[in-house]
Amino acid sequence: MTEQGKKVLHQPLGGNDMPRFGGPATFMRLPALTLADPLDVGIIGVPLDIGASNRPGARFGPREIRDESRMLRPFNVSTGADPFGSLSIADIGDVPINTFNLEKSVAIIEAHYDKVVAAGITPVSIGGDHTIVLPILRALKKKYGPIGVVHVDAHADVNDHMFGERIAHGTPFRRAMEEGLLDGNRVVQIGLRGTGYSPDEYQWSRDQGFRVVQAEECWYKSLAPLMEEVRAKVAGGPVYISFDIDGLDPSFAPGTGTAEVGGLSVHQGLEILRGCKGLDVIGADLVEVSPPYDTSKATSVVGANLLYEMLCVLPGVKYS
Amino acid sequence: MTEQGKKVLHQPLGGNDMPRFGGPATFMRLPALTLADPLDVGIIGVPLDIGASNRPGARFGPREIRDESRMLRPFNVSTGADPFGSLSIADIGDVPINTFNLEKSVAIIEAHYDKVVAAGITPVSIGGDHTIVLPILRALKKKYGPIGVVHVDAHADVNDHMFGERIAHGTPFRRAMEEGLLDGNRVVQIGLRGTGYSPDEYQWSRDQGFRVVQAEECWYKSLAPLMEEVRAKVAGGPVYISFDIDGLDPSFAPGTGTAEVGGLSVHQGLEILRGCKGLDVIGADLVEVSPPYDTSKATSVVGANLLYEMLCVLPGVKYS
Amino acid sequence: MTEQGKKVLHQPLGGNDMPRFGGPATFMRLPALTLADPLDVGIIGVPLDIGASNRPGARFGPREIRDESRMLRPFNVSTGADPFGSLSIADIGDVPINTFNLEKSVAIIEAHYDKVVAAGITPVSIGGDHTIVLPILRALKKKYGPIGVVHVDAHADVNDHMFGERIAHGTPFRRAMEEGLLDGNRVVQIGLRGTGYSPDEYQWSRDQGFRVVQAEECWYKSLAPLMEEVRAKVAGGPVYISFDIDGLDPSFAPGTGTAEVGGLSVHQGLEILRGCKGLDVIGADLVEVSPPYDTSKATSVVGANLLYEMLCVLPGVKYS
Amino acid sequence: MTEQGKKVLHQPLGGNDMPRFGGPATFMRLPALTLADPLDVGIIGVPLDIGASNRPGARFGPREIRDESRMLRPFNVSTGADPFGSLSIADIGDVPINTFNLEKSVAIIEAHYDKVVAAGITPVSIGGDHTIVLPILRALKKKYGPIGVVHVDAHADVNDHMFGERIAHGTPFRRAMEEGLLDGNRVVQIGLRGTGYSPDEYQWSRDQGFRVVQAEECWYKSLAPLMEEVRAKVAGGPVYISFDIDGLDPSFAPGTGTAEVGGLSVHQGLEILRGCKGLDVIGADLVEVSPPYDTSKATSVVGANLLYEMLCVLPGVKYS
Amino acid sequence: MTEQGKKVLHQPLGGNDMPRFGGPATFMRLPALTLADPLDVGIIGVPLDIGASNRPGARFGPREIRDESRMLRPFNVSTGADPFGSLSIADIGDVPINTFNLEKSVAIIEAHYDKVVAAGITPVSIGGDHTIVLPILRALKKKYGPIGVVHVDAHADVNDHMFGERIAHGTPFRRAMEEGLLDGNRVVQIGLRGTGYSPDEYQWSRDQGFRVVQAEECWYKSLAPLMEEVRAKVAGGPVYISFDIDGLDPSFAPGTGTAEVGGLSVHQGLEILRGCKGLDVIGADLVEVSPPYDTSKATSVVGANLLYEMLCVLPGVKYS
Amino acid sequence: MTEQGKKVLHQPLGGNDMPRFGGPATFMRLPALTLADPLDVGIIGVPLDIGASNRPGARFGPREIRDESRMLRPFNVSTGADPFGSLSIADIGDVPINTFNLEKSVAIIEAHYDKVVAAGITPVSIGGDHTIVLPILRALKKKYGPIGVVHVDAHADVNDHMFGERIAHGTPFRRAMEEGLLDGNRVVQIGLRGTGYSPDEYQWSRDQGFRVVQAEECWYKSLAPLMEEVRAKVAGGPVYISFDIDGLDPSFAPGTGTAEVGGLSVHQGLEILRGCKGLDVIGADLVEVSPPYDTSKATSVVGANLLYEMLCVLPGVKYS
Repeated sequence: MTEQGKKVLHQPLGGNDMPRFGGPATFMRLPALTLADPLDVGIIGVPLDIGASNRPGARFGPREIRDESRMLRPFNVSTGADPFGSLSIADIGDVPINTFNLEKSVAIIEAHYDKVVAAGITPVSIGGDHTIVLPILRALKKKYGPIGVVHVDAHADVNDHMFGERIAHGTPFRRAMEEGLLDGNRVVQIGLRGTGYSPDEYQWSRDQGFRVVQAEECWYKSLAPLMEEVRAKVAGGPVYISFDIDGLDPSFAPGTGTAEVGGLSVHQGLEILRGCKGLDVIGADLVEVSPPYDTSKATSVVGANLLYEMLCVLPGVKYS
Repeated sequence: MTEQGKKVLHQPLGGNDMPRFGGPATFMRLPALTLADPLDVGIIGVPLDIGASNRPGARFGPREIRDESRMLRPFNVSTGADPFGSLSIADIGDVPINTFNLEKSVAIIEAHYDKVVAAGITPVSIGGDHTIVLPILRALKKKYGPIGVVHVDAHADVNDHMFGERIAHGTPFRRAMEEGLLDGNRVVQIGLRGTGYSPDEYQWSRDQGFRVVQAEECWYKSLAPLMEEVRAKVAGGPVYISFDIDGLDPSFAPGTGTAEVGGLSVHQGLEILRGCKGLDVIGADLVEVSPPYDTSKATSVVGANLLYEMLCVLPGVKYS
Repeated sequence: MTEQGKKVLHQPLGGNDMPRFGGPATFMRLPALTLADPLDVGIIGVPLDIGASNRPGARFGPREIRDESRMLRPFNVSTGADPFGSLSIADIGDVPINTFNLEKSVAIIEAHYDKVVAAGITPVSIGGDHTIVLPILRALKKKYGPIGVVHVDAHADVNDHMFGERIAHGTPFRRAMEEGLLDGNRVVQIGLRGTGYSPDEYQWSRDQGFRVVQAEECWYKSLAPLMEEVRAKVAGGPVYISFDIDGLDPSFAPGTGTAEVGGLSVHQGLEILRGCKGLDVIGADLVEVSPPYDTSKATSVVGANLLYEMLCVLPGVKYS
Repeated sequence: MTEQGKKVLHQPLGGNDMPRFGGPATFMRLPALTLADPLDVGIIGVPLDIGASNRPGARFGPREIRDESRMLRPFNVSTGADPFGSLSIADIGDVPINTFNLEKSVAIIEAHYDKVVAAGITPVSIGGDHTIVLPILRALKKKYGPIGVVHVDAHADVNDHMFGERIAHGTPFRRAMEEGLLDGNRVVQIGLRGTGYSPDEYQWSRDQGFRVVQAEECWYKSLAPLMEEVRAKVAGGPVYISFDIDGLDPSFAPGTGTAEVGGLSVHQGLEILRGCKGLDVIGADLVEVSPPYDTSKATSVVGANLLYEMLCVLPGVKYS
Repeated sequence: MTEQGKKVLHQPLGGNDMPRFGGPATFMRLPALTLADPLDVGIIGVPLDIGASNRPGARFGPREIRDESRMLRPFNVSTGADPFGSLSIADIGDVPINTFNLEKSVAIIEAHYDKVVAAGITPVSIGGDHTIVLPILRALKKKYGPIGVVHVDAHADVNDHMFGERIAHGTPFRRAMEEGLLDGNRVVQIGLRGTGYSPDEYQWSRDQGFRVVQAEECWYKSLAPLMEEVRAKVAGGPVYISFDIDGLDPSFAPGTGTAEVGGLSVHQGLEILRGCKGLDVIGADLVEVSPPYDTSKATSVVGANLLYEMLCVLPGVKYS
Repeated sequence: MTEQGKKVLHQPLGGNDMPRFGGPATFMRLPALTLADPLDVGIIGVPLDIGASNRPGARFGPREIRDESRMLRPFNVSTGADPFGSLSIADIGDVPINTFNLEKSVAIIEAHYDKVVAAGITPVSIGGDHTIVLPILRALKKKYGPIGVVHVDAHADVNDHMFGERIAHGTPFRRAMEEGLLDGNRVVQIGLRGTGYSPDEYQWSRDQGFRVVQAEECWYKSLAPLMEEVRAKVAGGPVYISFDIDGLDPSFAPGTGTAEVGGLSVHQGLEILRGCKGLDVIGADLVEVSPPYDTSKATSVVGANLLYEMLCVLPGVKYS
């Protein structure tokens, strides 16, 4: 499907060539390629959920989101983006995590993304639980240096530990900061809310220079103005987008592990991602979709759409 | 139940006469009558879904929406409308479509609605997929001439073909325009969004004189102002209301076949329908509810309510 | 666990001591205590649903909401409230209602709450259907005199009867008013909407001095301004909070018995409860969660959060 | 549809006239008639479930079983029975039970069946919980005298009381025996099993002359031999068939309120009903299907088939 | 992955190389190859369900069955078969059916299987509804001449028409016989049951020389003896296996479109397939799994296992 | 509730004291006690599922099985056993496993059961995945020496490793044998089946002296004769019962992680447990119920019943 050494602008398999419910169960029915293929962007599944503290199931995120991505067509009618006409994008499969050992899995993921980075492929990842962002950032840091982050989530994920463990889905951004992976002054966390173990749950984030946008700050309005501020904050260096589906309210995304009420709307989620246009996005992920709790499959549909919108704001994408 | 030749103001069976979960599974537990009965308005089921391109299941829309309409009481407390005290309304059953042959089904539907029109009955239809609007418009056109449309949907449904077929759930408004069924300058499409096969998906609609209201234009606000514009646009002739449930965001209506994120809220859906008051509404439909994907039955409840609101804005309905 | 005669500030069992999915299935994994224990506040389950007119299932509300409350942590990060550091709160189990006899159940509940009141415990109740508020108010009235109410609901619940019965889930506030349990001028009903048996469904409420806030009055905006008015209205005496989950739109709370579209958002629900801070709240309930219709468990998660927010606005709770 | 005073052999609406998913949601899509119509057999829904002690939901049994009966065709290919070519059978709707009051509901049901009996109609009833069999037997007894019963169930339903109540779904056969409705020596209970409040749970039944067939007696084999014994036992007088769906193992019928493992197979259920051929069957019921727990709708499909098999063994049915 | 012109013994991706929930969503995680690759056997999806008369959804059969096949390991421990060590087997994707037009889809399928046959690949097909067997048999007939069939099903599928259509999921074996595709004396139909439009539903089959094994003949016992008879009947020429999942009882396979109670057990299904060992099997299919009705995914798991067992009885498979 | 130092015969909370859907969500609504209380038998939850290789969710097994045990009454009517009149039995809560670290969890479980053993309490455990049996056996071995096992399962669970890990849900009986925890000549494995990585999957078991009963050996018949053989084989020393719910066919227990078709019936499961009467049972477990896949809750009902049957065959239980 790809000529050795030359990038091909792969198109998703269209609904007039194969009915939507047929064809390969890859992301958007793109070709299933490998790290060895010449690509600008690779969709990667990371089916890890043993870092989750409440409901499991995110291990099935990659399979279900790919399945429900089957409806997506190539053009972004709302924004004019044409990702597949601009970049060479394919689905490059899953990371073979060790589902019995979280620590080893984190090492496996880091090693895998080292190769992704070495291949010059921008990774757009489908989780899996949020633990995966730590090894991904480790790999990206080696190439790019400290990274700015647009982080959408109900939780800050900056716990020092969970049940005594330093690696789990509630700790990655603390570890990342400690390890120098992040440029704290270029980090924004949007959608934080809920109950906590202390009244100053977000102080640590603020102490690192992060901009914390609590969910209440977002209610009932467009986030376009906020995104102007966000772009100003995170610009000037490489930026990573990490979107925990539980940043959205459970009415939009019930299929997740640690649901918190009062979250963002999917419209706001779209505005956040569309508002990242122009940033130097070096990678992105969509995590914490738990299909066993997604009885209507609506969460996987949302996840697939958010991943598509991430593709649309990658550097080099042309707009009509 | 009906005296020959004289219209009766049928009331829904009340919850103090039969518990809500008993009684006939007709729409709002109205009498089950036929085309031969003297009626102003007929609720008609069209259990067709072989025009659907992704998930099927809309064939069960009529049964499930009727079932979940059992809670509806006669008065519209929000608007003051009293449809059953104003018009003779009954459930007149289903169209016997041929589920193995889309083309024949379209012919069966047209013939059926020819009889509905001949009987002087205003049809309020429960789909079924959106293909059904084409034969319904064909039948109405014969009586009323070119029709204005208030069309709520995620998709414009103006494809030239799908998989080479000219008749399918993504093409009816193109066919209707080509056949002269519509008065293009009196057509409004609300809620359009999502991905497309080209960046100018809505240009064809605009070229016909349609007013296209993309979903983004609606976010975070009341649509009452928009409906003033809509009324001005579509007034001056017969108007048909076609409401594809996927016009709403999947958080409000997960049980549908081709879900698109970022849609209208049900509150906006109510405003759109309530905003049609005063127009010369000659028919209406609610399509694309797919019960197998409506695990909590919320979509059928929404569908039943929207159908009720359609009844409330028919000409001749009295308001308190 | 409690020293005889001395109140203990019970903490919910934390996620670092027992994983979220283990431990006792009490509310927030608090200790399971009894009326004989010295407490400020008792969480009480009332598993009654034979007062429901459409879908049953609220009998499982107490078990499911407790189960899904397992994720809640002690501090309210959004408001700074520290209920467990301020008050002695425990789960004091269920009322042994008679599921075959509604009248007897109402008597059992009243007798049970007489003991709760006698023990000086503020009841925060998990329904069950809305019938339960009548015997609860009866018991509270004996101690406090006529009570003001913040009532969130899709329905006014002021029917004179249902199917000829004076006691059912659609009549409690009418009975309460007739029995002198309420201070009508300090009652607010928020979220009312839907269809009715008459066009003036809310007139009776208004005639009693209630402030009726129809759902439409709430759409698309923050309810913080409304809550200023509400506080002014209900202040000056004991206040009870009664939150029927169907006050929220079904997109946020599909798992309920008599769903009505066009309701409040969960964000508005949070604002209403947070807006009760400062009132003399003497009890509260969350009713009508029906787990069999809550396929994604989102409704139980919402219910658990709303109950937590009720704890946060009880008199005596400290804020950081 | 029916000529006054003359019985018509109504045929179910066929799949070649209306697709299976359309048409009236009556049992087998038979005509919806009334007690005033001349009929041999009436299908009657009794949507009562407030007699249930564990899970509710049987109130939706009549609606769901009718819905899922849509696939049934007129001939019994396995046995050769032709019920619709032999008897005048129609769906005569639901009993308007009072869902807030069990005692009144029992009186309403008895009064309703008095009229059914007076009309000379053999009732085949869709529950609802098992409480309904008591008022049905009361009405039948007035005409037929003491009745023999073929009772399939996991439970003997001969408790003296439940929670102090003498009327509930666990007591009807005790009440019926006490009231002289049954001919104890012509009663058989098949499928009993599970845990109990005493080790001699079935002694009372045996003391009345009932033949008790515990589930274990049925495992791994055809019940054709048992049915020879049963026919010999219950013959010689009027016979009523009461089939509680929980007589079947939950693998065949998960959607029920008080599931007990180790039950009959559906094949055995078919053999029991087919084995009733030749008896003087004066009525029959299928109870305790709870649709909210029937996620795959398999239980309603089973229920519809069992009701059809009951029709096939009514006196007067011709076999090919 | 395959050397041009030389067959490779492809192994399913093992659970120690990639966790079960990761990797390609092909059948058993085999390589995704094409008709151009040298293969003995190809797994082919045929996502057609517009031939279905009741519930749709079989269009998702190929995707879901492949997904749930992820647990299958290479060796058949029960029978000793080693299909992947014996034959070159891969997943060769889906047939691009036209979901809006049944007749055209049938032509597309036939043309596709013509190519499969031409490539020397034995097709093992995943439906889709049972209509697909007709074009498959047409293609196979061209190479092999009249074919014997082991047909497991609840229905004979020999209707002359459905709703006037000669092609639908209830007619394929009638058409096949009429077109000379079958060797009627080498056809066996197992599991037939249910209701019918006439009392002699199976006479037509018997008239063609088919052996009809009604479900009742199978109850409560091993089918090993039956399979001796079946082998004797169908031997002596090419044999096709067509397994409609509704041949099994709904307790084993609830996720299907036209469920009939009283069916075969999955154990009997395994015996039937294992009993085909030694026959000259030239193709096989598993049809009518409808994932939207398979809430626990058990039906897809059964389907995947039955497909695996089909592979195990293909000519050339070695046994240990 | 318990007098210090003296055992009390705790009775489950009865349905006439508290409706089945109320009361504490402990096993059978027994008192929630602790290791410090004087008890003969303790029900213990082990909410671990990170040892699972396919679907997760067994972490919720303890909560859901306890919930669904609410229907169980004290007497075993089928066998006459009276466990609660014979032994002091209570629910002693969950083991605080570390859900992020399998190895540490295994150590936590072993330490916990060391205390259970030290307290003289016979553990009856609710899993969790099958990994938990290893630390339980380790603790029991210290007191009892090598142990005989009645092991019901679809899988032998004697892999040398999974994905390179020596501890996971597919390895416990290999580790146990290697560590000398088992008396190999007194081990029976019943229900094994499915596909494998080698054709001689069960050879290792046989080499240890285990009696391997493949599922096929059990089909279509009572296991009472087998259990005579089993009792003879495992008698003469301490016996542990380990029941993996996937030993049953998915039709009886769909809610599990690694479903294999063709399994035991629940009737056979009951016969196996009832057949253990008279053995020196020192502990028992029921593992691998995964509630997210148990849409009808039937699997949890089965699990609760099997646990109850285990209680009935403990030494010291009296039979009527």
